[in-house]
Amino acid sequence: MNGPDSTDAAWTELRRLRQSIDNLDAALVHLLAERFARTQQVGELKARHGMAAADPAREAEQIARLRQLAAESHLDPEFAEKFLVFIVGEVVRHHEALSGPPRDASR
Amino acid sequence: MNGPDSTDAAWTELRRLRQSIDNLDAALVHLLAERFARTQQVGELKARHGMAAADPAREAEQIARLRQLAAESHLDPEFAEKFLVFIVGEVVRHHEALSGPPRDASR
Repeated sequence: MNGPDSTDAAWTELRRLRQSIDNLDAALVHLLAERFARTQQVGELKARHGMAAADPAREAEQIARLRQLAAESHLDPEFAEKFLVFIVGEVVRHHEALSGPPRDASR
Repeated sequence: MNGPDSTDAAWTELRRLRQSIDNLDAALVHLLAERFARTQQVGELKARHGMAAADPAREAEQIARLRQLAAESHLDPEFAEKFLVFIVGEVVRHHEALSGPPRDASR
């Protein structure tokens, strides 16, 4: 349906978009690494001071806040919530692997 | 095991860490919004030019690259791969919701 020129232009555009996606993925990975370092500190702090591991009010706040931020960014709020649940699940999994019993999820 | 001063200091530190986590989550949401906008453009471009939707070589490259970036950032490479699979699943879900048949996953 398109001539060679159109196809060439499309491939150029595809490469450009993929470069942006790769840049964004690199940034996401680095931010996730930083986030895990901080939740690790939270876990250690709570263990050291005998603070309650779970904090449902904090978790509810985080979800509400992320949904709001997502809506403002034209991102599906359902996805933002699923994303947080996914990340938090990884935090829990790491803590279980390190220390046995489940600990605080959302921090 | 700790006196009131120690507990106060611990709560101050917890608040500080949570503020960092909230900042990182806001950044993550904004980057995800940008990433979804780009994959949306990829989907439209491919549909417009009749380009193949799936690209297994591209997907394999993305996974290998994210695992490498994760390792350099002291993030679990397994987690980075699961993260990409999670995001890509959302892209597919969005495209299915929009247009019926499944389309390219990783872009």
